[in-house]
Amino acid sequence: MNAPIFDNAAEGYLGVLGGMGPLAGAQFALRVAALTPAPNDQAHIPVILRNDPRIPDRSTAHMAGGPSPLPAMLAGIRFLEASGSQVIAIPCNTAHLWYDELAAAASVPVLHIVQSVIDDLVRQGVPSGRIGLMGTTATLALGLYQRHLEAAGYECIVPTDEEVERECMGAIRAVKAGQMEASIEPAVRCVNLLRDRGADAVVLGCTELPLAIPHALRAGLGPLSDSIDALALAAIAHCRPGIALA
Amino acid sequence: MNAPIFDNAAEGYLGVLGGMGPLAGAQFALRVAALTPAPNDQAHIPVILRNDPRIPDRSTAHMAGGPSPLPAMLAGIRFLEASGSQVIAIPCNTAHLWYDELAAAASVPVLHIVQSVIDDLVRQGVPSGRIGLMGTTATLALGLYQRHLEAAGYECIVPTDEEVERECMGAIRAVKAGQMEASIEPAVRCVNLLRDRGADAVVLGCTELPLAIPHALRAGLGPLSDSIDALALAAIAHCRPGIALA
Repeated sequence: MNAPIFDNAAEGYLGVLGGMGPLAGAQFALRVAALTPAPNDQAHIPVILRNDPRIPDRSTAHMAGGPSPLPAMLAGIRFLEASGSQVIAIPCNTAHLWYDELAAAASVPVLHIVQSVIDDLVRQGVPSGRIGLMGTTATLALGLYQRHLEAAGYECIVPTDEEVERECMGAIRAVKAGQMEASIEPAVRCVNLLRDRGADAVVLGCTELPLAIPHALRAGLGPLSDSIDALALAAIAHCRPGIALA
Repeated sequence: MNAPIFDNAAEGYLGVLGGMGPLAGAQFALRVAALTPAPNDQAHIPVILRNDPRIPDRSTAHMAGGPSPLPAMLAGIRFLEASGSQVIAIPCNTAHLWYDELAAAASVPVLHIVQSVIDDLVRQGVPSGRIGLMGTTATLALGLYQRHLEAAGYECIVPTDEEVERECMGAIRAVKAGQMEASIEPAVRCVNLLRDRGADAVVLGCTELPLAIPHALRAGLGPLSDSIDALALAAIAHCRPGIALA
């Protein structure tokens, strides 16, 4: 492996607004390190991860009138800026329903997870076509992915409300409760039903879903865009412009 | 799973002085979340991970007169304290050669990774006996584990200098360069040679080594104390006194 020529001595941090959930936040930091070409520790991207799980639930806020997560997320953005972040990533898809408010409040760039997934689909050789969507009820009901993917020329295939509740939310709740074994089956079932309906690729559009289907179990599921890996690759591309990504 | 009765609304952060290496720091945050019994996001332990890989190499400082990592580590401790940490964990064994200076400079408790491993051996049903040690040349040459384990009544089995260089450092350097496949074989070979010499359990006493031998590949290797998991369990026990750990 070639040593990157990038000099990171004076580099600002990649700030990570995590905790939504905490496994997803940590997995994001892990994937940033794993996907960054670097010959030794010192050449990696400096990261501050604020993995604070006490942010009110994003889905409950949108779907059931629960307390807004926005004040807690804004406090997180302020902490990351004060800590020297030069760019911020938010490894939670549902949190992006508040993206405009968060980006407007930040004085540094905030990466957009849906744009990262679109870039990832193109990188995987799927620049157009039909995309199967998995995510929280709130993310799918409010059309977060549909809006951006359709603007980019894709057609979206969305599970029925009942399938979202049973397969997507079933897998997501299992991951959030640490029941990893129970999360696999509903998640894989949803990938397969979307492919049966003609999806050229499936988006794991909630950051718990990549934890439900670990990389080792993805063979045979066709092209998947993992929103954690997609955001990690976008962060690496931002911090190391010009570096060749796997 | 029962909901923990712990109220974390006013809880300080678990501060993590990471980056040594960055995969190990992120894996530590991941294992804290995975090993904490919690029914939903909000019940988890709030974590700040400063995953700054620019800290000078610990082994090079001790073995080859490289720049000291102490000033950079002290800066990290100060950052974590200023960020509201109530306890600090350092997922790097070699960094613990500077433990006394770091703990003396901190106004909050700093967990000791070797004590965490001893607690983990007891938890695994190995309260005495012969312990095989794997780690960096510096950690083993300076007797970090030997000192603490012998004080606790254990007998230590240490690989030869050549084996440490070839098997332990071979695996560690491969992980630090992101070459995970190349890291497995030397690490497993070292576990097996220590068991052949009579080890009742083997300590993965460098935080790159648990990444070289993922959990899924540990069947048949006998009792292993994974220094990342051991430190994560110690952190959970500190932050959630009385909680039942797996």
